[in-house]
Amino acid sequence: MNTVKTRDRILQTSLDLFNDQGERAVTTNHIAAAMNISTGNLYYHFRNKREIISELFRAYENRVRGVLNLPEERSAQITDMQFYLTEIFRGLWEYRFLHRDLETLLLADPQLHEDYRNFYRYCLGQAQSILMALDQAGIIRADREACEDLALNAWIMITSWFSFLHCTQPLTTASGVSESMLEGGIYQVLSLGKPYLTETYREAALALIAEVTTRPDWLDGRMS
Amino acid sequence: MNTVKTRDRILQTSLDLFNDQGERAVTTNHIAAAMNISTGNLYYHFRNKREIISELFRAYENRVRGVLNLPEERSAQITDMQFYLTEIFRGLWEYRFLHRDLETLLLADPQLHEDYRNFYRYCLGQAQSILMALDQAGIIRADREACEDLALNAWIMITSWFSFLHCTQPLTTASGVSESMLEGGIYQVLSLGKPYLTETYREAALALIAEVTTRPDWLDGRMS
Repeated sequence: MNTVKTRDRILQTSLDLFNDQGERAVTTNHIAAAMNISTGNLYYHFRNKREIISELFRAYENRVRGVLNLPEERSAQITDMQFYLTEIFRGLWEYRFLHRDLETLLLADPQLHEDYRNFYRYCLGQAQSILMALDQAGIIRADREACEDLALNAWIMITSWFSFLHCTQPLTTASGVSESMLEGGIYQVLSLGKPYLTETYREAALALIAEVTTRPDWLDGRMS
Repeated sequence: MNTVKTRDRILQTSLDLFNDQGERAVTTNHIAAAMNISTGNLYYHFRNKREIISELFRAYENRVRGVLNLPEERSAQITDMQFYLTEIFRGLWEYRFLHRDLETLLLADPQLHEDYRNFYRYCLGQAQSILMALDQAGIIRADREACEDLALNAWIMITSWFSFLHCTQPLTTASGVSESMLEGGIYQVLSLGKPYLTETYREAALALIAEVTTRPDWLDGRMS
């Protein structure tokens, strides 16, 4: 029982440290020290940092896979988009270290890179299906090609939002981006879909968007 | 005369090495060795690698600033978008090392970070003005808010495209992404604007898009 708990504690401590300090700055020694355990004890559970990262990626992946499902036995609704995006951005925040230096992480671990590519394909496929369901429900008007383009654009916006903030915004806090700044990305992703809304649903959808998220007017670089 | 030439050669050699091997893997020693000059000679021109990177960033910035101008004494035309995007993606390619690990580069050099933020603000402002000019010319129908959202989405797509390819696509060549893969991003950026095209210009614009760029159907993760 105790070893199971230690394993989970190692994962949680690693996640906290990676998120706060960036994965590159944290060693297994730091993790063990933060937990007051020996590195030997840590290595009993994970052979190296790479294994910890893989396990955290799997947890992140399962979090997102648990969200991106098509509604069963009913048509898609406007509120579904709210659920998908809120949950996805919550996941992004919880595992934010992953998207801070993803390219380096993936280049260092071919297996992780392959897992990530499978995850990408799964997410893109689900996003495409969700958008086509919104089209079928008459909420958006978008053919298959437009749904594919939209899904890809949304993927890039979501996975790049954190890095965009880091590169372009004046960040005053030490740890950088706050959860609410991150959630500003929800508005931008929804803005991709706005022009596809049908007349019937436009007003209701825009009202819902306004409820879910506020336009990130705090963003540096806006005219208004 | 000779020193001026050496300085330019150092910049060009650094750019080639950074693009091929990634900036992090290249030291001033490597650069000097590749040029058959002493490191002392190199340090006569640049105090350190950071100075070389700054100078290359300035060259990239000037390249893009030279492109993002509003047409003078005439209204915006559909073909303007072709010019902007082709030139911007060419610049991305020529200085591709910059966007491969931009966050790390910027975090390591506060002055560069500030310069980059100014560059971002300039580009976003110009993109917003260009989109508003397209609206005034009747090519797209987009209010100020939509132009701002579009400009930001385009910025994120353009600056993240290279990293997106690296993370999600199976890259067979050693140096990774090819110029034509990079240019696939032109299609995706144009796809952001498609739903805003007016009926009057839609057909002509879509025909032009098809001329400029082909849909990146080779992208892994597409349904079709």
